[in-house]
Amino acid sequence: MSIVKAYGAQSPTAALELLEIERRDLKHDDVKIKILYCGVCHSDIHTVRNDWKGSKYPVVPGHEIVGEVIAIGEDVKKFKKGDKVGVGCMVDSCQNCEACNKDLEQFCEKGMVGTYNGKDQILGGHTFGGYSEKIVVKEDFVLSIPENLELKAVAPLLCAGITTYSPLKHWNVKKGDRVGVIGLGGLGHMGIKLAKAMGAHVVMVTTSPNKSQDAKRLGADEVLISKDKQAMETMANSFDLLLNTIPVKHDINPYLKLLKIDATMVMVGAIEPLEPVHGGNLIMGRKRVAGSLIGGIKETQEMLDFCGEHNVVSDIELIDMPYINEAYERVINADVKYRFVIDLESLRN
Amino acid sequence: MSIVKAYGAQSPTAALELLEIERRDLKHDDVKIKILYCGVCHSDIHTVRNDWKGSKYPVVPGHEIVGEVIAIGEDVKKFKKGDKVGVGCMVDSCQNCEACNKDLEQFCEKGMVGTYNGKDQILGGHTFGGYSEKIVVKEDFVLSIPENLELKAVAPLLCAGITTYSPLKHWNVKKGDRVGVIGLGGLGHMGIKLAKAMGAHVVMVTTSPNKSQDAKRLGADEVLISKDKQAMETMANSFDLLLNTIPVKHDINPYLKLLKIDATMVMVGAIEPLEPVHGGNLIMGRKRVAGSLIGGIKETQEMLDFCGEHNVVSDIELIDMPYINEAYERVINADVKYRFVIDLESLRN
Repeated sequence: MSIVKAYGAQSPTAALELLEIERRDLKHDDVKIKILYCGVCHSDIHTVRNDWKGSKYPVVPGHEIVGEVIAIGEDVKKFKKGDKVGVGCMVDSCQNCEACNKDLEQFCEKGMVGTYNGKDQILGGHTFGGYSEKIVVKEDFVLSIPENLELKAVAPLLCAGITTYSPLKHWNVKKGDRVGVIGLGGLGHMGIKLAKAMGAHVVMVTTSPNKSQDAKRLGADEVLISKDKQAMETMANSFDLLLNTIPVKHDINPYLKLLKIDATMVMVGAIEPLEPVHGGNLIMGRKRVAGSLIGGIKETQEMLDFCGEHNVVSDIELIDMPYINEAYERVINADVKYRFVIDLESLRN
Repeated sequence: MSIVKAYGAQSPTAALELLEIERRDLKHDDVKIKILYCGVCHSDIHTVRNDWKGSKYPVVPGHEIVGEVIAIGEDVKKFKKGDKVGVGCMVDSCQNCEACNKDLEQFCEKGMVGTYNGKDQILGGHTFGGYSEKIVVKEDFVLSIPENLELKAVAPLLCAGITTYSPLKHWNVKKGDRVGVIGLGGLGHMGIKLAKAMGAHVVMVTTSPNKSQDAKRLGADEVLISKDKQAMETMANSFDLLLNTIPVKHDINPYLKLLKIDATMVMVGAIEPLEPVHGGNLIMGRKRVAGSLIGGIKETQEMLDFCGEHNVVSDIELIDMPYINEAYERVINADVKYRFVIDLESLRN
């Protein structure tokens, strides 16, 4: 074991502060990574503040990790020292159940091991995430980063990117499809970029007219203001897929009316009870509501490769580690375009 | 035009009573049907009582019609005098939009014409349903009934049958699939029979332990009592499809937990707001909730042919026309196994 520096919270109400945590010794199939950048996901805040219950302290968040390989175990085949790699929301799973065998480790029947606040299978206790100098991760959960992408802007792809890419791929978005992305935040801005790169006609659906210009800059072909009843009526029954990134409780009924017959709205943001859905809005037009959770490791690699081919990265604001508490307040106030990324050099200095 | 006898209601609060209504003269593509039997659907009651608003009076309900062809227009090819035929929930549609071209007339972009309380395209005013001696229907909306089936027990197939058959087929139920049918009423009892005939392992999901025996008689392989938390836990993540026939507002969250990864619960009963769905119950396991509305004409014929092959009909209680008001009270109290069917001879006598 080695002791490394990290930032974390000692209780649900404490600010994040400098901590020392343990990282395991390199096992035969492990990769040791010097963390260069780590994205700030809203889930980090939920976990720090125990919003979803079950948080274990200290919480060291961070599951949008980009770094450089500094050592490998003797059986590691895919990576070598100096490689630029990523780690997303998972660092382990049983790798043996029906879900894992289908490359859906996020739904592992025995429970995937979260990059932070997961059950550490090796050291015991719970896992610590990417707000840290270094991390040791099993090779199978480490991802290759295409060389042409800007490293710091890649970090958010590991969660926000795969969370939006996976449903777009799973529901088979193709050239010319009308895709609506609902909500313009960390997830939504990646949804626009990825759907556009897949060739879709992308409509940004937002309550805020002042987000129109930015949505178009990010690649949206049109903007639909969801408070404008007439505009909503005009686009009724016109969408092949809706990607709903709104992170809080809301009324999905008006959006269901936008779907074509047999089309689906995929929920990726709100992990809480929604407003009541009217059965008639599903029955008329055989419409569907589904959920989607990040993506498996194979699909995450596919997403990174796709981003390499299409030059897609996140829009970020780079921050130093000590700024994290202020950054959290700004995330909560939706005051970031569109993802904070921590420069971990600021932790080493 | 001709005048025929019917039963209908003059206002939302009136009892059904004997009326005289107009039927159109035979057009070149029309079939004139002497109605033999008509099933009693809960929608009839909702329409009579204006529960869904927009009812036009007098309401003459009935969209589970079985009868005998007594005359045909000069261009009618598919039917001849004496044929036993059925009419379901629709008597017309534009037959020219994207939905109609996909054999989904129930979702016709211009609005399908309901068998009752629809906008009558020929006579003007609104359509009158099957609680009547005779009906005149466009050939394309008339269905052939397999000769081996008992006519009076076929009537409910025209609505309850297709409403459950269509989602089972659309979601591709096949031999060995685990299908849960939620709620044992008119729809649920057909859901069990049809899923079983498709080769599925059928589990009846009900709040009422006293329905177990009957569910098994109808073909259910197992019964799951939804109030039994331990039993629900045991069957978590085990269903390929859930067919939810509950006709009123309820909490679908416990049922979502029964679905396998990527599996769907199809709502066919509740045309009203449901209790709030927890986003996490969709996101974990990429689960789906969908709706389904009857089925197109082509699929309704396919359903009837399937029922002919597999000897599937409804369990019915045959009643005379004047009993209808009492029957409605019993439907509301779920006191029928499992569908009332009116013998229209009782109207002619």
